[in-house]
Amino acid sequence: MSLSSLALPHIARLHAYTPGLQPTGPGWVKLNTNECPYPPSPRVAEALRREIGDDGGSLRLYPNPRSAPLRTVVASLHGLGGENVCIGNGSDDILNLLIRAFCTQDAATGFTLPSYSLYPVLVEIQDGRSNAIEFDRSMRLPVERIAASPARAFFLTSPNAPTGVGFSNAELERVLAAFRGLLVVDEAYAPFADENAIPLLTRHPNLVVVRSLSKAYALAGLRVGYALAQPEIIGLLDRVRDSYNVNRLSQVAALAALGDQAYYDGVIARVKATRDRGAADLAQRRGWFTYPSQANFIFTEPRNGRGEAGPAVAKAAYDFLFARKVLVRHFPSHALTAPFLRLSVGTDAEMRVLSDLFDAWLKTPAPNA
Amino acid sequence: MSLSSLALPHIARLHAYTPGLQPTGPGWVKLNTNECPYPPSPRVAEALRREIGDDGGSLRLYPNPRSAPLRTVVASLHGLGGENVCIGNGSDDILNLLIRAFCTQDAATGFTLPSYSLYPVLVEIQDGRSNAIEFDRSMRLPVERIAASPARAFFLTSPNAPTGVGFSNAELERVLAAFRGLLVVDEAYAPFADENAIPLLTRHPNLVVVRSLSKAYALAGLRVGYALAQPEIIGLLDRVRDSYNVNRLSQVAALAALGDQAYYDGVIARVKATRDRGAADLAQRRGWFTYPSQANFIFTEPRNGRGEAGPAVAKAAYDFLFARKVLVRHFPSHALTAPFLRLSVGTDAEMRVLSDLFDAWLKTPAPNA
Repeated sequence: MSLSSLALPHIARLHAYTPGLQPTGPGWVKLNTNECPYPPSPRVAEALRREIGDDGGSLRLYPNPRSAPLRTVVASLHGLGGENVCIGNGSDDILNLLIRAFCTQDAATGFTLPSYSLYPVLVEIQDGRSNAIEFDRSMRLPVERIAASPARAFFLTSPNAPTGVGFSNAELERVLAAFRGLLVVDEAYAPFADENAIPLLTRHPNLVVVRSLSKAYALAGLRVGYALAQPEIIGLLDRVRDSYNVNRLSQVAALAALGDQAYYDGVIARVKATRDRGAADLAQRRGWFTYPSQANFIFTEPRNGRGEAGPAVAKAAYDFLFARKVLVRHFPSHALTAPFLRLSVGTDAEMRVLSDLFDAWLKTPAPNA
Repeated sequence: MSLSSLALPHIARLHAYTPGLQPTGPGWVKLNTNECPYPPSPRVAEALRREIGDDGGSLRLYPNPRSAPLRTVVASLHGLGGENVCIGNGSDDILNLLIRAFCTQDAATGFTLPSYSLYPVLVEIQDGRSNAIEFDRSMRLPVERIAASPARAFFLTSPNAPTGVGFSNAELERVLAAFRGLLVVDEAYAPFADENAIPLLTRHPNLVVVRSLSKAYALAGLRVGYALAQPEIIGLLDRVRDSYNVNRLSQVAALAALGDQAYYDGVIARVKATRDRGAADLAQRRGWFTYPSQANFIFTEPRNGRGEAGPAVAKAAYDFLFARKVLVRHFPSHALTAPFLRLSVGTDAEMRVLSDLFDAWLKTPAPNA
């Protein structure tokens, strides 16, 4: 008996999503998965220590199954009601719930290419049908094509990944006015952007906004994200959601983090300042094509010492950095991303290490592409 | 536009799983969701404090995407290889992954009735087909009927919930010898039992054993469970699994807990001693029909002051306890469970409170059924 033959045929054929490397050894400068370079609010560690207490006694009890206190705080943060909020084990959990509720073979699930590479993986796990809309090199939002998409649900990362390009609410409203399905705006990076889609929720019942505490709130390790939407959609997600999807400590940490907006305003301002200096250095001093970033990363097209760009050059730069324990991200599988590297915004010191290594790479006499 | 009409039809019709009540106010004696009455190993709080450090700095980083160190420790605990282990965000996550990989409209998914009420909910979320096999009041394993089930995957809780009845490896092997599908033995309560199915894994490639750290390890609040199976099955689960399903602190806590077996041997011995005294008291002194329990709960059929039993009597006892802030569990939806209450084993002090309240209930002059 083949065990795989017992599995659903599309599952037996699946390839797993490849997350960014999470090195376990010391000494790495980690600019590959868009984590926050600064620790979370000091209130997070305090709240966790309080919850753990002397003996961790509260950990023996199940968490609040609806993350109810967290729903209330998220709602009030965005001027919404608790009935507009669903909390996930990371925003990936929310994306998965949306796919399970809205994705089918009968009606396609839409997304742009390039964007967050998890969407097509989730569609495949669901044995759904994809409707991919390609960007061109301008990376401007293809408003008319999305609006005319036959998709029942369309996933749009804004600001987009891995480019960092932000889409305006004016553009999103043009999509929302014409699109007949559910528009999921994945705002993992919105705290670093000029604008976000939350004000559109009251006017557009077919809008879902997804947020993460992994980036701006420096809590990637604790897996908390959320959906904002009409109560009818939240109700659907709750029916598919695991009863205890968010553990006690993650709920406690998220509550503490969301309660300290002043701290995070400072963190976000620092990340944006470092980002803007870094992007200007790449674009102006080095002359590398670099998209204007509204996120906490920079998408740039490296040019080698001979002035050449392209997938092989980007790969050579990636390998050069990797050999020196600096991790960035290269996406070779799409023509629009293959000549680029995505650089997460680190501390100023980390960005100097990166910049110095790019200088060293440019001076390498050996073939570097 | 109706938003629900955009959802998959079976999702729009779903009813959510109802978890046990998790009261947030003080003063409750909580014997309703089979949590451990004792705190986790002291090493858990220590390890968590170490990971959090001064400023929670490590929380900004994603967790190990495969929970790799935890796989290694779980494997060595059970004399298996790391390739035999998949870690879940609670064992419910594992059950859900199994459903997504093996459950379809074309081939039924099997389970017994009564058993863990999440199985049919997960099958419905997947829009699958169920093959339910009914116990009779003996609660003995219907070996022949399971062996002959057309199910592609069969979920068996052992010891069973909510009865606490354990099934022997001899019985399980009779099922495994004949059953053509995947047999998932859900061993959430196995640490309290005389026997477990893990030794059968090497002989039966179609066996999956599921474990939880919520009960015996006192970590319900942190959501950690795991599957033990052939590498081929683990590979399927990993392809469906969310990349970062288990957060940093849960991984750290689980590692610390699994490293302190001596502590948990003591906890399990205490829970079993309290259970056996409690069950004897109910069965012998009160004369209430009570299944022999191999779990950390007792399933008993209350008789009121007039010697009557039945669904209304059980409900009356439940309500009497609830009004006095003692929470137990009543499952009115199945004829075999409706006359019973499930009592999680608490501390000896909690069990005395419960016993005293049963005495008071029996003396109530008002109609108590």
